[in-house]
Amino acid sequence: MLAQSRRKFISMLGKAAAVTGLATISGAAAAAMPPKKGFVHHVYFWLNNPESEADKAKLLEGLRNLAKVKSIREYHIGVPADTNRDVIDSSYAVSWMLVFDDRKAQDSYQEDPIHLDFVKNYSNLWSKVVVYDSVPA
Amino acid sequence: MLAQSRRKFISMLGKAAAVTGLATISGAAAAAMPPKKGFVHHVYFWLNNPESEADKAKLLEGLRNLAKVKSIREYHIGVPADTNRDVIDSSYAVSWMLVFDDRKAQDSYQEDPIHLDFVKNYSNLWSKVVVYDSVPA
Repeated sequence: MLAQSRRKFISMLGKAAAVTGLATISGAAAAAMPPKKGFVHHVYFWLNNPESEADKAKLLEGLRNLAKVKSIREYHIGVPADTNRDVIDSSYAVSWMLVFDDRKAQDSYQEDPIHLDFVKNYSNLWSKVVVYDSVPA
Repeated sequence: MLAQSRRKFISMLGKAAAVTGLATISGAAAAAMPPKKGFVHHVYFWLNNPESEADKAKLLEGLRNLAKVKSIREYHIGVPADTNRDVIDSSYAVSWMLVFDDRKAQDSYQEDPIHLDFVKNYSNLWSKVVVYDSVPA
């Protein structure tokens, strides 16, 4: 019984490794991750009303719902950090960073009804969107 | 002894969850990850010689070495995907996306000798760099 539980935990560890791209799970993992695989889709939004906290909150609410799209592997919803070197663009209002397993998963997201509804219901909030798509080098 | 091993595995699972931001590790994890926490530092490079595959390869080599900085939690080294909608900027040569635990870890990276050497040894390759830093909304 305990041996069975142990096998189950080993199996779960394997799943965790597969999901996260960890080559090994050990105390040193945090410092030496392998590069993330996958398709990175990073969107920056500028608002029509940059001063409106209500509009920003509404967009964030929309993104939290958009995150339900099944083909998304990882997501990060952000706002500009308070860093300010010359090369840093912190003029955007909201950052929406997604990682997909591959191009096909990204294409599926673009056509997902949740995504189409998001664009329909929230696009009035933004004045500009810049997207950078990248694949592993 | 087995009970001890089991505790050890549970402890390792806990570490994996802490590192990856997974709230639970289960078969359904891949489809429903919680948002990634942390400080996202995304850098886009444009090359002085955009047509030079050798220069691009050299920059990629530099980034693979730069990835050794200990305070980096995750990284993704990319090149533009072949997507091409109006909002997509695919004019850059290389994408360098990092996730840190927090602002302090990012600041430590900026001052790390490996990072300072990278800038010294490779900055002749690029003509423009744009950085977007973001923190969880």
